[in-house]
Amino acid sequence: MSQFIAVDLGGTNIRVAYFPNPEPPPLTQSKTPTLASEGPDAVIERLSQAIEAQLPEDRKDLRIGVGAPGPLDPRHGMVLKAVNLPGWEMIPLRSILEVRFVCPVLVGNDANLAALGEWRFGAGQGTSDLIYLTISTGIGGGVIIDNKLLIGSWGLGAELGHMTVEPGGPICSCGQLGHLEAVASGPAIARSATARIEAGQPSVLKERLESNEKMTAVDVGEAAQAGDPLACEVIEQAAEYIGRHMADLAHAFNPEVFVIGGGVSQLGSLLFEPLERAFEAHLISPAYMMNLRIAPAALGDDAGLIGAMVLASQE
Amino acid sequence: MSQFIAVDLGGTNIRVAYFPNPEPPPLTQSKTPTLASEGPDAVIERLSQAIEAQLPEDRKDLRIGVGAPGPLDPRHGMVLKAVNLPGWEMIPLRSILEVRFVCPVLVGNDANLAALGEWRFGAGQGTSDLIYLTISTGIGGGVIIDNKLLIGSWGLGAELGHMTVEPGGPICSCGQLGHLEAVASGPAIARSATARIEAGQPSVLKERLESNEKMTAVDVGEAAQAGDPLACEVIEQAAEYIGRHMADLAHAFNPEVFVIGGGVSQLGSLLFEPLERAFEAHLISPAYMMNLRIAPAALGDDAGLIGAMVLASQE
Repeated sequence: MSQFIAVDLGGTNIRVAYFPNPEPPPLTQSKTPTLASEGPDAVIERLSQAIEAQLPEDRKDLRIGVGAPGPLDPRHGMVLKAVNLPGWEMIPLRSILEVRFVCPVLVGNDANLAALGEWRFGAGQGTSDLIYLTISTGIGGGVIIDNKLLIGSWGLGAELGHMTVEPGGPICSCGQLGHLEAVASGPAIARSATARIEAGQPSVLKERLESNEKMTAVDVGEAAQAGDPLACEVIEQAAEYIGRHMADLAHAFNPEVFVIGGGVSQLGSLLFEPLERAFEAHLISPAYMMNLRIAPAALGDDAGLIGAMVLASQE
Repeated sequence: MSQFIAVDLGGTNIRVAYFPNPEPPPLTQSKTPTLASEGPDAVIERLSQAIEAQLPEDRKDLRIGVGAPGPLDPRHGMVLKAVNLPGWEMIPLRSILEVRFVCPVLVGNDANLAALGEWRFGAGQGTSDLIYLTISTGIGGGVIIDNKLLIGSWGLGAELGHMTVEPGGPICSCGQLGHLEAVASGPAIARSATARIEAGQPSVLKERLESNEKMTAVDVGEAAQAGDPLACEVIEQAAEYIGRHMADLAHAFNPEVFVIGGGVSQLGSLLFEPLERAFEAHLISPAYMMNLRIAPAALGDDAGLIGAMVLASQE
């Protein structure tokens, strides 16, 4: 039976866990600041030391799974470019770690691996066709089809946040217009609230804006929870975009379950109720609802780490 | 080695072919009017007789593959509802044919099977990840992922024409608004030309409209080929919708090839040039262009029939 080191390489933290068996929980885990500004060599060295610290004495049948920001080429374990990691362009992460640790290393897109984690051990357990959306600073996606992770011909698939939902709409982090990420991510929610207040709509959030503090989706969520009409409207609009996009995705993928994670999903029923209404309203046939579930993610921040272990255990 | 009967059940014709081997061309084939208005029992009887007429004497290892209009449940070979076939609701086509012919019968959505045909023997030969769009009276889709047809949990996937490209836009045949089918199918092209002429824009097509003849996409295509600015504009607009949607689909599926079939694809470079421009302009990264091809379909009207044979040969 194999044993696993799982790595979640993020813009803020590097998380590493040791799984003696192919299932959670890990026996040990650690969290190290990424200090991404120091560049790829320093980050890879730090990541490697974090792995070293958790290596078991007997390295028999050890495999390493790594989740990293995309776009990356999982077939070759190559990070093509990572927006949150300065200097990361065409970094052969898999090869570097294989040379250092002399064991099989698997690398995957972080959102894809979170999908894999939720499918195998989280909110999507027991399903064969799953769509995962993580709604946070960006919107990432992962798709399981017939018990297999969709990666596409070069591993660039499942970028479900970068699909057009409002043609000619707000500019997205990727430079295109009107993507789901541009209208329904955390920053998009904050921007939408700010724009409405600046246009003169009343809101409890107005004070915050006038005191020059940066508005966040958390602020908007709190105001909505307290019943502020503007904040409720903003969150409903984001939820409607997500729900309609999910209907479009249902027509493409016909999944059994949508798992929704990321910070914005913490809004709970404020988000999920209008989202579910919009989803059902945009389906072309009630047949798509057969056995379908929309579920909040169950693994929280551990989804990516667990998914990295699942990836390594599958190959 | 198995031998195959392939059936393409359409709203106008029933086509049946006998393949002594799992490859084209068929040894014999026939075309019978569907006479759909007579209802399911009559159509199934006619379809069965068309099969009988081509059955080989030795029925050893015979398999039957059937393409039928969706939505249908391919796992159970059940036609849930067929828009062009009056009375077809919850028809267990697979079971009916298995009882009659005492051999394995496989049933698939017609556009999905056309994708399968193009992938195995047409414009997508040799690829592992393909997206097929047929642009005709409706817009159908088919997706091959890692050499396997995407069907989804209930076989309702790959409805790529029923995804939103213009929120709040024209009504679609399915009742939703702004789907690709509602803005870029043949009828949508004809409607768009008609609306522009009625709004006072000049065009050689004006006469046609005034003589009360029904405008079709073929008329618009001919006018565009002759240089009519309005007709060119209408086709370019449809091409831009298709191209942008293909970019969104590339982000979701990261395919190696898009195969474009159906009557509207006969417009050739009038359609393909603006489509390719829009596609490239909407990609989030040039990495999606690596080895990617956009190809016109190669099998014409035979794609579905050949795909039905491929389906039967795979199981």
